[in-house]
Amino acid sequence: MNYLLIIKFIGAMLQFEGLFMLIPFTVGLIYHETQAKYLLLMAAVAFVIGSLLRLIQPKSKKFHSKEGFVVTAFSWIVLSVMGAMPFWISGEINSFTDAVFETASGFTTTGASILVDLEAMCKCMLFWRSFTHWIGGMGVLVFMLIFLKSSADEMNLMRAESPGPSVDKLVPKVRTTAFILYAIYTGITAISIIAFIAAGMPVFDSFCIGFGAAGTGGFGVKADSCASYSPLCQVLITISMFLFGVNFKIYFLIIIKKFKEILKCEEVLWYTIIYIVASTLVAVNIFTEIGAVGESVRASCFQVASIMTTTGFATHDFNLWSSLPKAILVLIMFTGACAGSTGGGIKVSRWILYLKQIKREVAKYTHPRSVKKIRLDGDVVDENTIRSANVYLMAYAAVFIVSMLVICIDGYDLITCFTSVAATLNNIGPGLEVVGPIGNYAGYSILSKWVFVFDMIAGRLELFPVLIMFAPQTWKRK
Amino acid sequence: MNYLLIIKFIGAMLQFEGLFMLIPFTVGLIYHETQAKYLLLMAAVAFVIGSLLRLIQPKSKKFHSKEGFVVTAFSWIVLSVMGAMPFWISGEINSFTDAVFETASGFTTTGASILVDLEAMCKCMLFWRSFTHWIGGMGVLVFMLIFLKSSADEMNLMRAESPGPSVDKLVPKVRTTAFILYAIYTGITAISIIAFIAAGMPVFDSFCIGFGAAGTGGFGVKADSCASYSPLCQVLITISMFLFGVNFKIYFLIIIKKFKEILKCEEVLWYTIIYIVASTLVAVNIFTEIGAVGESVRASCFQVASIMTTTGFATHDFNLWSSLPKAILVLIMFTGACAGSTGGGIKVSRWILYLKQIKREVAKYTHPRSVKKIRLDGDVVDENTIRSANVYLMAYAAVFIVSMLVICIDGYDLITCFTSVAATLNNIGPGLEVVGPIGNYAGYSILSKWVFVFDMIAGRLELFPVLIMFAPQTWKRK
Repeated sequence: MNYLLIIKFIGAMLQFEGLFMLIPFTVGLIYHETQAKYLLLMAAVAFVIGSLLRLIQPKSKKFHSKEGFVVTAFSWIVLSVMGAMPFWISGEINSFTDAVFETASGFTTTGASILVDLEAMCKCMLFWRSFTHWIGGMGVLVFMLIFLKSSADEMNLMRAESPGPSVDKLVPKVRTTAFILYAIYTGITAISIIAFIAAGMPVFDSFCIGFGAAGTGGFGVKADSCASYSPLCQVLITISMFLFGVNFKIYFLIIIKKFKEILKCEEVLWYTIIYIVASTLVAVNIFTEIGAVGESVRASCFQVASIMTTTGFATHDFNLWSSLPKAILVLIMFTGACAGSTGGGIKVSRWILYLKQIKREVAKYTHPRSVKKIRLDGDVVDENTIRSANVYLMAYAAVFIVSMLVICIDGYDLITCFTSVAATLNNIGPGLEVVGPIGNYAGYSILSKWVFVFDMIAGRLELFPVLIMFAPQTWKRK
Repeated sequence: MNYLLIIKFIGAMLQFEGLFMLIPFTVGLIYHETQAKYLLLMAAVAFVIGSLLRLIQPKSKKFHSKEGFVVTAFSWIVLSVMGAMPFWISGEINSFTDAVFETASGFTTTGASILVDLEAMCKCMLFWRSFTHWIGGMGVLVFMLIFLKSSADEMNLMRAESPGPSVDKLVPKVRTTAFILYAIYTGITAISIIAFIAAGMPVFDSFCIGFGAAGTGGFGVKADSCASYSPLCQVLITISMFLFGVNFKIYFLIIIKKFKEILKCEEVLWYTIIYIVASTLVAVNIFTEIGAVGESVRASCFQVASIMTTTGFATHDFNLWSSLPKAILVLIMFTGACAGSTGGGIKVSRWILYLKQIKREVAKYTHPRSVKKIRLDGDVVDENTIRSANVYLMAYAAVFIVSMLVICIDGYDLITCFTSVAATLNNIGPGLEVVGPIGNYAGYSILSKWVFVFDMIAGRLELFPVLIMFAPQTWKRK
C-alpha cells in the first residue's frame, strides 16, 4: 500500500474542497451574512492542510487498483468531515455527528436531512449544502482528473467513483473524458437554472434546486421541498431530474451527432419505459386522492422522476398515498437511474444484466448444450462485468441487512427502518413514515446516524471501495 | 417435449395421491365423521383418473432435463388442485380458490391459511390438511422414485424437487437415496409424535403438529397455533422444528457413523450459529415485554426456529413485539433452513456462497492476479452451481417484486403486503400485521390468492421448474 501517495492525493483533494468553499462564501458576501466568515476560515484551513500534505514526495506515483479504491473511499470520508466544518463551527448545526451526516448526505447526493427548521438557516450555508450535491454528483475525483498531471492508472480512480457496472471511456484519454463529462454536466445545470429563473423561481432557489437536480441530490431550501413552486417550475424540475438520470454517454453521442448509436442504448430505453409505466400507474392510483387529472399526472411524474433518479425532492407527501403507489415508489428506489449518470441506486443496467441471466438460465435447462453470451447494446458483456454485477447484489443485500439490524435498535416502526436504509444506501433521501418527505432523520441515535453516513458513502461509491477499505486483507503486508 | 410421458407420470402421481387420501379417511372413520365419505370418493376419483392416464404408452421413457422440470411443476399444480377437492366438495371450504390456496399451502409446507374458524373444521379434514405438509415436505416425486421403475434421468426429478443449490446423492443409486431420505424422515417424525404424546399433547394434535413440524409446514389445529400447549410440548416442538431444518445428509452420516464428516458441514454450522444469535437477540429484546426470563427464552427459541425453518407455528403474537425482534424474524424469513432439509427459503448454503463471493471479489481487487476457487465443506464448488445460486437470487427478486405489485392492489398496508409475499414465497405461512400469527389470508382478493398459490409452489420448487414451465421457449418446437 502506497500510504504516502494516498496522503498526497488527499492533500490535493482538500485544496480543491477549499477552493469550492469560496463560492458559498461569495454568496454570503452578497447577502451580507456574518456566517460567511466561517466558510472563508474553513476554506483557508482546508487549502493550507491540503498544500502541506502535497509537499510529501512518495517514491512511486503509480496508483494500483487497490490504492485507487482505498483513496476514493478515504477521500469521500475526509471530504464529508471537512465539508461539515463550516456548519459545525458556525453553530448552524450544533452536533458534530449531525453536521457530518448532513454533509455526507450532500456530497453523496442523498439529500437525507437532520435539519428540523430549514428556513432558519442562513443563505450561504444553504448554498454550500446544495452545492455539495453538485460537487458530489459527477464526482470530485473525476473533477480533479481534469487538472492533475496524468498518472498511469487514473482509470482506476474513475472506475471507483463512477456509477454503474462498467465505465465507458468516451474518448481514449481519461482526462479528456473527465473534461467532457464535466462540460456536459455544467452545461445542463446552467440550462436548468436559467429555465427555473425564467419560470419565475427566485434566483437563490433556482441555483440550489438546480444543484440538487443536477447531482440528483434532493436538498431543498424550503420546508415543503418543492410543493410551493409553481406548476411550471415543478414540470421543469421533473424534466431536469429525468435528464440527469440518463447515461451521459447519450449527450456525448448527441454532440458528436451519432444518433444511430443512441437508439442502441438498451439502458436508456428501459429507464424510459420503467419511468413511463411507473408514472402512469402512480397517476391512476393517486387520482382518487388528488381529484384533478392534471395535478395527478404532474405529481406522479415529479415523484417518480425524483425517486427513480434518486434525487428525493417532493411536491406531495407521498407517505399519505395508498399502498400501490407507495409500493411502486419503494420498488423504484431499488431500480435507480442509468449507469454513467449522476443518479444512484442499483442502476437499470444491472437489472438488465440480472434479467438476461435469468433468461439464459432458463434457456440452459431447455437446451443444455447451448452456450449463450449476454449482450448489452449489441455488444457481448464480458464475464468479469457480469460477475461483478452479481456480487454487487449480494454485497448490497449484506450491507442492507446489517444496517437494518443496527438501526432497528432505535425502535422506529419497520417501514421507517426499511425505507431509511433504502433511502440512504440508494442515495435518495426521503423514505416513508418518520423519514417521509415532510419528516427527517433528526430523531435517530448517534449510532444510527453513523450507520447512515456509512451507507450513503458506500452507496455512492457502489460498495466495493468502502468494503475494500475495511477489509483486513487490504492492509496486510506481504 | 415428451407430452405423453409427462401425462403418464401425472397419472402415477394421482394414484399415489389417491392412496394418501385413504389415511385421513381412516381418521374420519375413527371419529365417526360423515365428511370422511368425500375423502373416500376423491381418493377413488384420483386413483381411477391416475390409472387411466397410466395406460398411455409413450414412445420414449426418457426424462430429459427440460421434461424433469416441467413434470415437477405440473405435478405440484395437479397435486394441489386434486388435493383441494375433498375440502371443496365437502363444503368445509366454500370457495374453490380458497380450497386450492389452502391445499397448495399444505403441500408446499407454507402453512398460510384462509380459514377464519379453524376449530369448526372436522377432524378428518384437519388431518388431511396437516398430512399434506408431511407429503410435501420431503417431496411427492422423491417418494414415487422409491416405487417406480428406474428411468435413466430420474436424477433430474430429484434435482427439480429437492431444495438447495445442489443435490447430494447419499448413495450412488437415486432410488436408494430416496428410500434412505424417507426412512430418516419417517423415523424422526415418529419419534417427534411419540414425544409429543408422552409430553401430554392430545394424540390427534400430536399427529397434526408432528406432520407440520416434519414438513416445516405450520398448519395448527387450534386457533392460537401452539400457544395453549404446555411449556414442555413447546420445547419439544422447537427441537423437532430445528431438527427438520438440518440437512438430512447429517442424519445419514450419523447412521453410517462418519462423525468426522459432520464437523466439515459448514451449512449446518452456520445454521446453528444464526439460530443461536437470532434467538439470543430476540430473547433479550422481548424480555421487557414478557417479563420472565424462562418464557422469553422459550418464546424466542420457538419463534426463531419456527420462522427460520420456515415452519410458521407460533406461541406468541410476535406481531406485537418491538421493531428489532420483528426485523430479526423478517430477516431470517429470507435466510431459511439448510439445503437438503424439508425447510424452505433461500437456504443458508446459498448465503454462504454469496458471502464467499463477496470475499473473493474484494480479494480480486487487492490481488488482481489471484485465482481463488470457492470451497464449501472443503470441496471446490463448481462454477455452474455458483452461477445457478446467483441467478436464483435474481429470479427470487424478480418474482418478489412482481408479486408485491399485484397484491398491493388490494390496498393492505405495506408491511402486510411485504411480509405476505415473503411468507408465501419462502413457504413460512404467517407474516406481520393482517397476516400475522393470529391473522390469516382470507381477506385477500381472488387474484392475490392465485398469486400466492403461484409463489408458494414457485418457492417450494425453487423457482426454476415453474419459470421453465411458463417460458415460451420451453414449448417451442425445433
